[in-house]
Amino acid sequence: MRSVDSLLDAVPEGAKIVCIELVEGAVALPEFEHPENAFYVFGPEDGSLEQAVVDRADAVVYIPTIGCMNLAATVNVLLYDRMAKSYQQQANNPLDQGDQLIRQSRDTNNLLQVK
Amino acid sequence: MRSVDSLLDAVPEGAKIVCIELVEGAVALPEFEHPENAFYVFGPEDGSLEQAVVDRADAVVYIPTIGCMNLAATVNVLLYDRMAKSYQQQANNPLDQGDQLIRQSRDTNNLLQVK
Repeated sequence: MRSVDSLLDAVPEGAKIVCIELVEGAVALPEFEHPENAFYVFGPEDGSLEQAVVDRADAVVYIPTIGCMNLAATVNVLLYDRMAKSYQQQANNPLDQGDQLIRQSRDTNNLLQVK
Repeated sequence: MRSVDSLLDAVPEGAKIVCIELVEGAVALPEFEHPENAFYVFGPEDGSLEQAVVDRADAVVYIPTIGCMNLAATVNVLLYDRMAKSYQQQANNPLDQGDQLIRQSRDTNNLLQVK
């Protein structure tokens, strides 16, 4: 973590700036192709990104909801969408190792099985 | 809203039961095809669904994460996935009316534009 005067000072070399915000003219997330090297910028809950940041963005993306989601939900959905699309592009699908991931990630109280 | 002794008593006529839970043998959400008429059942945060509910499920789905998400995030991601997939199947894509949706859904302080 580091402090910067502007988010634009923190963009890593070679990364594409992707703003996630309800902005007219934005691309709907289901139709968006994520850059491999992306720097995602999310707006605050009570307000919006600065126009200067949006002006510098390589892409502006919105999540098509009725009403707006809070920040945590927005980040979860954005990262899920990136993961889901990247899996579809891989020939050797990591979801084939799903049971191992499930055993690592589930609650320790969870001993369910699909019979 | 109504109270029932078991979730299984609340399944609407004709609906498919879809459990969302980290269960070995479950289908990864990116690969899941949602039934048109679905009754989604989510597990509690500290524990899991009852085996009896999982046994009755038409499908059991997990979200492939490192660690598990909280309930609100899980619901957001599940419903986003359903929406994203349903849009892809529609010839007359409702995302084409995106700007109207954005104007209705954005924060009143948000007057940004993609230039």
